[in-house]
Amino acid sequence: MSETEAFPGTVYLVGAGPGDPELLTVRARRLLDSADVVAHDSLVHEELLDSIPATIRLVDVGKRPGPDGQRTTQEEIHELLVKTASEPASVVRLKCGDPTVFARGGEEAEALAEAGVDCEIVPGVTSAIAAPGVAGIPVTHREHASALTVVTGHEDPTKPESALDWAALADTVAAGGTLSILMGVGRLPDNMAALESAGLDPETSVAMIERATYEDQTVVTGTVATITDRAERADLSPPAVTLVGDVVDVREAIDACMQSLDRQLITTDQYSQIEGD
Amino acid sequence: MSETEAFPGTVYLVGAGPGDPELLTVRARRLLDSADVVAHDSLVHEELLDSIPATIRLVDVGKRPGPDGQRTTQEEIHELLVKTASEPASVVRLKCGDPTVFARGGEEAEALAEAGVDCEIVPGVTSAIAAPGVAGIPVTHREHASALTVVTGHEDPTKPESALDWAALADTVAAGGTLSILMGVGRLPDNMAALESAGLDPETSVAMIERATYEDQTVVTGTVATITDRAERADLSPPAVTLVGDVVDVREAIDACMQSLDRQLITTDQYSQIEGD
Repeated sequence: MSETEAFPGTVYLVGAGPGDPELLTVRARRLLDSADVVAHDSLVHEELLDSIPATIRLVDVGKRPGPDGQRTTQEEIHELLVKTASEPASVVRLKCGDPTVFARGGEEAEALAEAGVDCEIVPGVTSAIAAPGVAGIPVTHREHASALTVVTGHEDPTKPESALDWAALADTVAAGGTLSILMGVGRLPDNMAALESAGLDPETSVAMIERATYEDQTVVTGTVATITDRAERADLSPPAVTLVGDVVDVREAIDACMQSLDRQLITTDQYSQIEGD
Repeated sequence: MSETEAFPGTVYLVGAGPGDPELLTVRARRLLDSADVVAHDSLVHEELLDSIPATIRLVDVGKRPGPDGQRTTQEEIHELLVKTASEPASVVRLKCGDPTVFARGGEEAEALAEAGVDCEIVPGVTSAIAAPGVAGIPVTHREHASALTVVTGHEDPTKPESALDWAALADTVAAGGTLSILMGVGRLPDNMAALESAGLDPETSVAMIERATYEDQTVVTGTVATITDRAERADLSPPAVTLVGDVVDVREAIDACMQSLDRQLITTDQYSQIEGD
């Protein structure tokens, strides 16, 4: 294990994967077991945090210490990482999914480089692909999807300063691509409306996977036109991945063979079944 | 370990990650160590195959047994998986990267479901994200990229039956997205020409990461206009990931802090350095 031990003075930007601690990489697991400090996002799976040896110092950088509970700023995170690495300590900066997929891994690496602190990016399994995967939905498929686009859905799509071109995203799906939206629960109605008004067929299939790879994972399926109502009636809440495209329909064929597994990750979409489509 | 042991009669569609055996997930590692049979793609890292216990039967499904060495058809792979699982044996179907990202995982799950064989999709770290990541290029970045699109580059982009809409891909990059092209070495000149003739600025940054996470990983950088010539002069060959977009430029800032690591994955782009841009 010596070759994979965490080094003092180094910050490891590590992907924690979609949730289930078994979906950590072997390297991430070894770094977590040998680091001095683990600075983690608030959303990291509790079971995963519990699996870290008690001798290791855990810091939740999602919120400030103390009773106010405000969010830590990105600047404060950078300072904390530089300061802790310089003690010197080995620091694992643990992020949900992959550290470079909408997780500020690039910005943190830049801040570390500027301060002269060594760092390493340790890739992880991204929820954008894994959440649909464990729910029986392959993000690409020779007959259904030849491209995958990943975005975040938390921005207001009607604001002119929105960084996303929803018309281009609608075109991508119409041309046979899959769209995977992270952090899209709050803006779901707006985002679906943006796709529809950009010309995407409202009958296009949509699936939402809530708390993917957790024991209480829930899958809700529908279409661009119906998913908002369904998600609301299923009382779906963050974190969830929203998948748009024909690949969603593959789930029906695959689901049967995934039902009888010992390790059953897939909660039947009871709401859809009641509705009967 | 009993809870994660491979079950007889079940096929596990497992992602092997980008190459380095340490970038397997913990679950994949445990399944590989407890399976009866591992049916793997030809491209899976040799070191990873060597790490599988000698008692486990290895089947290279990338090519037919015997001296002719032809590629196994997808139909033959389906038959092999169904037959082996029915012995009954526990089967790990090991695929590079993630099993649902251009890896036929969906088709194989469908074939297994049709035959009544249990299966599970075990997500992996995809090269589309990890290859740039370990090379110091974050696929998204608040200042540079708000979307990531993943495609394969092995189809002829000038054929009318091409499944890819290169004009839409060019638009995505122009609008601030990152394009990650898998299997794109052979068609590199055609694909870059397709992007350029669809209106993408020929000065847009491009990086190619050859044999990502292997010890002889090589990174070549350039632009849509120059990358073909550079890749050729660097004698770059498959497998490689091609990344198009402004995030490529982040590497320069990050690279400095990644240089002094004990575990040095990044081979300096000597060709680029000689050229001096």
